[in-house]
Amino acid sequence: MGDPAGVGPETIATLWGQESFHRCCHGLVVGSPAVLRRAIDLVGSEVEVVEVSSAQQQLPSPALMPLLTSGQGGAEQVAAATVDPRGGQAAYDALLVATELALHGEVDAIVTAPLNKAALAAAGLPYPGHTELLAELCQTPDATMMLYLPPGKQIQGTVGLGVAHATLHTPLAQVSSQLNTERITTVIDLTHHFMAHLLAVHGQDRAPRLGVAAMNPHGGEQGLFGNEEGLLIRPAVQQTQANGLNVCGPLPADTVMVRAAAGDFDAVVAMYHDQGHIALKLLGMHQAVNITLGLPIIRTSVAHGTAFDLAWQGRAQITGLLQAVQTAAQLAPRRHQLTGIQSSQ
Amino acid sequence: MGDPAGVGPETIATLWGQESFHRCCHGLVVGSPAVLRRAIDLVGSEVEVVEVSSAQQQLPSPALMPLLTSGQGGAEQVAAATVDPRGGQAAYDALLVATELALHGEVDAIVTAPLNKAALAAAGLPYPGHTELLAELCQTPDATMMLYLPPGKQIQGTVGLGVAHATLHTPLAQVSSQLNTERITTVIDLTHHFMAHLLAVHGQDRAPRLGVAAMNPHGGEQGLFGNEEGLLIRPAVQQTQANGLNVCGPLPADTVMVRAAAGDFDAVVAMYHDQGHIALKLLGMHQAVNITLGLPIIRTSVAHGTAFDLAWQGRAQITGLLQAVQTAAQLAPRRHQLTGIQSSQ
Repeated sequence: MGDPAGVGPETIATLWGQESFHRCCHGLVVGSPAVLRRAIDLVGSEVEVVEVSSAQQQLPSPALMPLLTSGQGGAEQVAAATVDPRGGQAAYDALLVATELALHGEVDAIVTAPLNKAALAAAGLPYPGHTELLAELCQTPDATMMLYLPPGKQIQGTVGLGVAHATLHTPLAQVSSQLNTERITTVIDLTHHFMAHLLAVHGQDRAPRLGVAAMNPHGGEQGLFGNEEGLLIRPAVQQTQANGLNVCGPLPADTVMVRAAAGDFDAVVAMYHDQGHIALKLLGMHQAVNITLGLPIIRTSVAHGTAFDLAWQGRAQITGLLQAVQTAAQLAPRRHQLTGIQSSQ
Repeated sequence: MGDPAGVGPETIATLWGQESFHRCCHGLVVGSPAVLRRAIDLVGSEVEVVEVSSAQQQLPSPALMPLLTSGQGGAEQVAAATVDPRGGQAAYDALLVATELALHGEVDAIVTAPLNKAALAAAGLPYPGHTELLAELCQTPDATMMLYLPPGKQIQGTVGLGVAHATLHTPLAQVSSQLNTERITTVIDLTHHFMAHLLAVHGQDRAPRLGVAAMNPHGGEQGLFGNEEGLLIRPAVQQTQANGLNVCGPLPADTVMVRAAAGDFDAVVAMYHDQGHIALKLLGMHQAVNITLGLPIIRTSVAHGTAFDLAWQGRAQITGLLQAVQTAAQLAPRRHQLTGIQSSQ
């Protein structure tokens, strides 16, 4: 459900009316029935919320939304577009229940609606974001955020373009000190593993081609503009090449993104948040999907936030949520190949 | 001319055959006649190089290329696509002569072909790039690099999109310590001044709208992911707002670039090299023009490098060079309004 003050509930309500949604999965909502019913009214839908106590109890349909209640109540009292600790708590509770369902194999994948970091912190849950929260819930500290765009006008690659982030919610001045060769190697491995799975579910029998971004301008210009390329990044590239991965870099960040969009790479490993986010948002802000790599479960999300400037006005776009659901559904059928190997690392 | 080992000479030779080039300016080449003649042969042109001793001596035409020799010779011995100190020296000599011509008002603007930093360093001229070299030649230490894209499919703004850089060839880990409110204020002022001029030459009577990028992920998320936004950037935005500029920020870097491409801003002030370069190269790598703000002369350049992988094969694109010339020609007619104010700062 995400934060009840944000655009999550209304995008779920609108999504439920889409045939393309029901064609790709059997949906189950986790959250507050009162909030979802209000969102359904807002968007002028007539879908009926059916409260269930297990994932299997009720098959969904365009007319029926099975909903598993999470949390102890309070979400329905949160006003639209406000930072409220009850909103942060409700988003956390829904994530917790959904994650447990996935860990126990009762659902094949989870898709999350946006949460609000300030509301989360106000509820005494000071996580920088979903990625860090999921890493803790699943006890997988290496979990990594990828932004993913499906193939399309701007993305020439046959299975789209993924950009994984070696650091995420890190102040720019601390990126250098938080990076090390081991972390970069792990993120290259997770990215390779994920993209290999994505190629397989698309029926493409080839190794993913990965580009690794440099950190400094001009890729450090032979050490003149910084030396992390030689000290930290190149050893990680060489190590993964020695393990047989099709990976090259470090490449200047502006060049690697242009080449990736043109189809030279299936995925890029970015060194910091904005390196990946500037590129992917320009290439397709509304289509971008957030995927957490390295979890024992499949989890995707919209790439946008709670969008308080739009929330509860009934006009939020659902392109991102639909794309996140479709991507999760693509990954799910052979999910044990993806998550099994990761959880054994 | 740029470095004789790179794509500069052949792109100039090809450009000379374009009617659109001669329609926008009277061209004069500064460099080595032997190198230019070889490039003209390479691209199969029949233009005749006429060696001149002043800018006014010979009007150019598609059949005649006036050329002012720079340097003491040696450029003609540089092999294609190699780092050679004579190539670095030749690029420097051509830049020096062209800059002097512009400073003395004998030409209205200069457009530079790419140089090679390693060749420059090998010649004992260890400059990080053209921008820093021009700042020194013109004794204007505040000079700032802007990447500019003209209006088009990807850029909705009525006069295109400029991105100025508050730091440039700075290792990422040092960006925070090299930034300060005074520098950011200066770059906002230079950007405003330049875009106001560009609007005026396009006949648009309005103030430029500027967006200032944050440095950290999510714009620092209220200090959780870094505090340069509050400490350094916001005071500069407030100071320039108080002076009447239409400027807003700091805005998260991924968002500000999407909004700028959509036409919300005429220009963005980026805090570091790749923040601007990732965005502008994705939005139009071959159209991007490099403009130096804050000089007493008008100077534009291609945004690409010497491209040794392509050089002297006769297949280098001239889109960037033509765009750089056209942009310089647009700026030139009222150049004293632009450079006069800047040089008095």
